[in-house]
Amino acid sequence: MQEGDAGVRQVRDLGEQGLLQRLQKFCPADVVGDDGALLSVRQGYLLVVTSDTLVDGVHFSVGFATPGVRTTSAYDAGWRSAAANLSDLAAMGAAPLGITVGLGLPGEVPIALVEELYQGMVDCLQPFNTPIVGGDICRSPVTSLNITALGEVLPHQAIRRSTAQPGDVILVTGVHGASRAGLELLLHPEMGQELRSSDRAHLIRAHQRPRPRLDVIPRLHLLDPLPDRFTGMDSSDGLADAVLQICRASKVGAQIDRHQIPLAAGLANWLPEKALEWALYGGEDFELVLCLPSPSAQMLLNVLEGSAIVGTITAEPGVVLWGSTGQSVEQQLSLDRGFQHFG
Amino acid sequence: MQEGDAGVRQVRDLGEQGLLQRLQKFCPADVVGDDGALLSVRQGYLLVVTSDTLVDGVHFSVGFATPGVRTTSAYDAGWRSAAANLSDLAAMGAAPLGITVGLGLPGEVPIALVEELYQGMVDCLQPFNTPIVGGDICRSPVTSLNITALGEVLPHQAIRRSTAQPGDVILVTGVHGASRAGLELLLHPEMGQELRSSDRAHLIRAHQRPRPRLDVIPRLHLLDPLPDRFTGMDSSDGLADAVLQICRASKVGAQIDRHQIPLAAGLANWLPEKALEWALYGGEDFELVLCLPSPSAQMLLNVLEGSAIVGTITAEPGVVLWGSTGQSVEQQLSLDRGFQHFG
Repeated sequence: MQEGDAGVRQVRDLGEQGLLQRLQKFCPADVVGDDGALLSVRQGYLLVVTSDTLVDGVHFSVGFATPGVRTTSAYDAGWRSAAANLSDLAAMGAAPLGITVGLGLPGEVPIALVEELYQGMVDCLQPFNTPIVGGDICRSPVTSLNITALGEVLPHQAIRRSTAQPGDVILVTGVHGASRAGLELLLHPEMGQELRSSDRAHLIRAHQRPRPRLDVIPRLHLLDPLPDRFTGMDSSDGLADAVLQICRASKVGAQIDRHQIPLAAGLANWLPEKALEWALYGGEDFELVLCLPSPSAQMLLNVLEGSAIVGTITAEPGVVLWGSTGQSVEQQLSLDRGFQHFG
Repeated sequence: MQEGDAGVRQVRDLGEQGLLQRLQKFCPADVVGDDGALLSVRQGYLLVVTSDTLVDGVHFSVGFATPGVRTTSAYDAGWRSAAANLSDLAAMGAAPLGITVGLGLPGEVPIALVEELYQGMVDCLQPFNTPIVGGDICRSPVTSLNITALGEVLPHQAIRRSTAQPGDVILVTGVHGASRAGLELLLHPEMGQELRSSDRAHLIRAHQRPRPRLDVIPRLHLLDPLPDRFTGMDSSDGLADAVLQICRASKVGAQIDRHQIPLAAGLANWLPEKALEWALYGGEDFELVLCLPSPSAQMLLNVLEGSAIVGTITAEPGVVLWGSTGQSVEQQLSLDRGFQHFG
């Protein structure tokens, strides 16, 4: 790192206009430079809008101003912010159109770190051909990042939280608990020495470079017969939160089989007690949690590697965790145990 | 104020979910509550996206955490933030569809102040039937507000910065310098005792409750003949900045007649030297600065009360300020004198 070096150019050396000009290389030239960006939404499609704010020291620890406490690189902070927003679009069944970036920065942040942050966002967006279509930079005592993601979806293909029905099965598109385990390994490098190095690297990568599951959406549309409704959300705040939110919005309950929840390789053997807690409440795995009629779910299971059916929607309210092997005591899940940002 | 009163409910008492639920009364019930909002863009229209970040202590002084230094009420901070974003939509020639709100908040902020902030936004949006369609709340050491505004425009009616041509006249839709004068009166209540009380109130109101000029857009579309292009932007960073940005994007120059710039009532008599500086560089007047063929500008002048023609686009580069009465020395305008956020 170069902080303290008098030769390092800082944000305050460029000013807002200068910095914005410098960052335009990350944006398509034809949509930036005016008071707003112009985008096309295809005929018949609805516009999907989702927004997310991240603050240094709360949601990530870039430690721009105090590099000693950095646990996330600027590149990874950018990647994860973009991934979280693309995941929200996936959770709506949408195809991405673009994102806007609002950045609050202390004047002493090195310009190179801001460019790293943008590079992380652009690299996460690139596989989905999604541009940064505008944004705003302003001085702030703390680094903050607000992303608004825009997408498009055909009305009957929108995934909603409120349309689950008793008898639907609950399908998750991949493993849970990995991101939280990766964070623990980053915070406590002395932990997990018994993990295989490939498993360890995989857990850390799950935290640093999560992949939004936009790839799932076209597969939903290929289901034959096509379900008459799509229900679901992403597991950004944990699997428990996702199921609870869907049940609340749909006025139904659910049963989750704890033994069916797919865990990252190595995790269950490493910390069997923690693994389930992290899967349910850890958050940031950015998988999709879908409620579908059983035949549709079975078809999806066959084409979506890593997916699993973890439970069933019930008419009785409440979300119950149980174990199909009969060894586990039933447990009622609750939002209170989930991540509470002001807690 | 009620800070320090143990009975005041603070953000941390509700948590993120609780606060979001409480704020849903400010949002239409049919578009919130999912991972993203769903909006319709009319067929043939382009989507317009613009984004703005405001930080307590930098762009406004709500002083949520330190109420002693408050110079903006939470209501006015909300109003002004919404107005700034609607003004960006007006500057693109767009009709508004909705805004998203990303709010960073310290845990000790009273909930009542957050509701005031939202009420200010909603009241500014109401005349334009524009809903808050979503957003995000998160813990932050400093209060920050990111708004992304969405609008729609027919492709040939979009107002751009880059299409000014030599010979176009420069029309402003209203007075300049008022917002900055109002801020000075708020910061220094002992100033301006010689102002008429109605003028004083008007200046302060111009700062606290600016009105985005979305009303101008339908009038542009009624011009007969319709111009083949619409050029302009808003004067949120000052009249000088607007003209300079348009000239840079269009690769042209401009002459501005200082005596033609409309100033708020009372301002020129009160502080004649400051008045021009505030009009050019003060910012936040949120008027539109339009470049049009002379006949179109004359027509607009007739239907738009308070508008004025202040200059002409030239082929020679550079923006020159001159006085039609011959008493003023010519002066070259420069972006460096404008508001620099990291300065």
